Amino acid sequence: MSEAPPYSAVRIDVVRLPGAHSERDAVAVEEPLEIRINGEPIAVTMRTPGDDEELALGFCLTEGLAPRSAAPPSDLAANTVEVVADRRPVARNFYTTSSCGVCGKGALEAVAVEAAHVNAELRVAPALVSGLPEQLRAAQAAFAATGGLHATGLFSASGDLLCVREDVGRHNAMDKVVGWAFGEGMLPLQEAVLCVSGRLSFELVQKAAVAGCPVVVAVGAPSSLAVELAADRGVTLCGFVRDGRVNVYTEPWRITE
Amino acid sequence: MSEAPPYSAVRIDVVRLPGAHSERDAVAVEEPLEIRINGEPIAVTMRTPGDDEELALGFCLTEGLAPRSAAPPSDLAANTVEVVADRRPVARNFYTTSSCGVCGKGALEAVAVEAAHVNAELRVAPALVSGLPEQLRAAQAAFAATGGLHATGLFSASGDLLCVREDVGRHNAMDKVVGWAFGEGMLPLQEAVLCVSGRLSFELVQKAAVAGCPVVVAVGAPSSLAVELAADRGVTLCGFVRDGRVNVYTEPWRITE
Repeated sequence: MSEAPPYSAVRIDVVRLPGAHSERDAVAVEEPLEIRINGEPIAVTMRTPGDDEELALGFCLTEGLAPRSAAPPSDLAANTVEVVADRRPVARNFYTTSSCGVCGKGALEAVAVEAAHVNAELRVAPALVSGLPEQLRAAQAAFAATGGLHATGLFSASGDLLCVREDVGRHNAMDKVVGWAFGEGMLPLQEAVLCVSGRLSFELVQKAAVAGCPVVVAVGAPSSLAVELAADRGVTLCGFVRDGRVNVYTEPWRITE
Repeated sequence: MSEAPPYSAVRIDVVRLPGAHSERDAVAVEEPLEIRINGEPIAVTMRTPGDDEELALGFCLTEGLAPRSAAPPSDLAANTVEVVADRRPVARNFYTTSSCGVCGKGALEAVAVEAAHVNAELRVAPALVSGLPEQLRAAQAAFAATGGLHATGLFSASGDLLCVREDVGRHNAMDKVVGWAFGEGMLPLQEAVLCVSGRLSFELVQKAAVAGCPVVVAVGAPSSLAVELAADRGVTLCGFVRDGRVNVYTEPWRITE
């Protein structure tokens, strides 16, 4: 497994009611990050600091921009990452926040990033799927302190946790994991399962599909468009994975003993 | 109180494990909405359909674009709202998804929308604050069906629910409520309290502050930047409002008997 995520909380004063006693408490850190491609600012995302290069790489990968590398800029601008990529976004400027992912598209019909149909032959046992959220939660160092962070975990087909990342933005946590996998030479993720701590939106399924991942698991509910996109891309979508139960919304043939 | 939100769920097939029996289940609807200002497309947001004009008005208001009215476009394009506004965004195109709100800003230092310091003399009793999440939840028609929707509720100073809106995007639910209040001639919200169903990010506090609301209440945790912005704008921020307990992060003097 990759190294543990950095401690992503700060301590602030809080007044607790009833009683009105003042205490110190931990909150999740949220700060803007500017992503530049080939020197040009293309996105601002509100993220939890840490693994910024992986975040920028994952963002560019899942936006279809074919990144090659990411590093702090030569002028050492704070909260900025410089990406070298083969493509530029369609729109000159696009901007993201705590759960963006379809940014940079110029029209409704262009919201979806091009992604091949996921055709991995992977099979996963139901018991393995139902145990993933607990493994993810156990690895969430920062959530325990703040209660304020989303997480994405990348698991092997045998259920080993390979990488976990946390962020105030759910799509940022996913981007960080995909960026990490890119650095490890693991893309496409044909033999892996992605598990997210919250709900499944369109953009999370899109990012997983672009990364080639055949199985996506969530503690929470999927949206209608998340289910639609998963069906279109051939991704197996599991939601409400709690207390030994699993709802399989698409491609249930992959979940088998 | 305003009319109940429209039923924002669709029924789809789901395979439930263990047992592998197929059933029909409800999921929250997520679809893109294009927002045009004075004829020009400026944002695409992934939202739950319903109250689209209010959403577009609230979005433009909290982005500082001084909207006057919103309506479906004359060409009847689906999933599009046309806004008449006095200002145009700084960047020509900006794009949003399930929880955007700082879109359209050209640099890190320009992320924050201009907002006056909230100087309302409103006082709210602790018992009133601690009861708001339960009132909000009771009014969440669609959440009960799907488990997949965020909500924002607007309450009077005496704790009456004035308006509730639900959406897959937490910032959309807030925009819909602010847009509704605009239509009712209630802005700035100096005698009101906003309550959100989840966590408090930077953008939600920004939207509340731009709408002039002095007290913001959340069931979940605030981020560091949410606390910082609330302190800067003079907004009283309450988080982790559960089981009779309230954490007050900023301007606690407003929460008093």
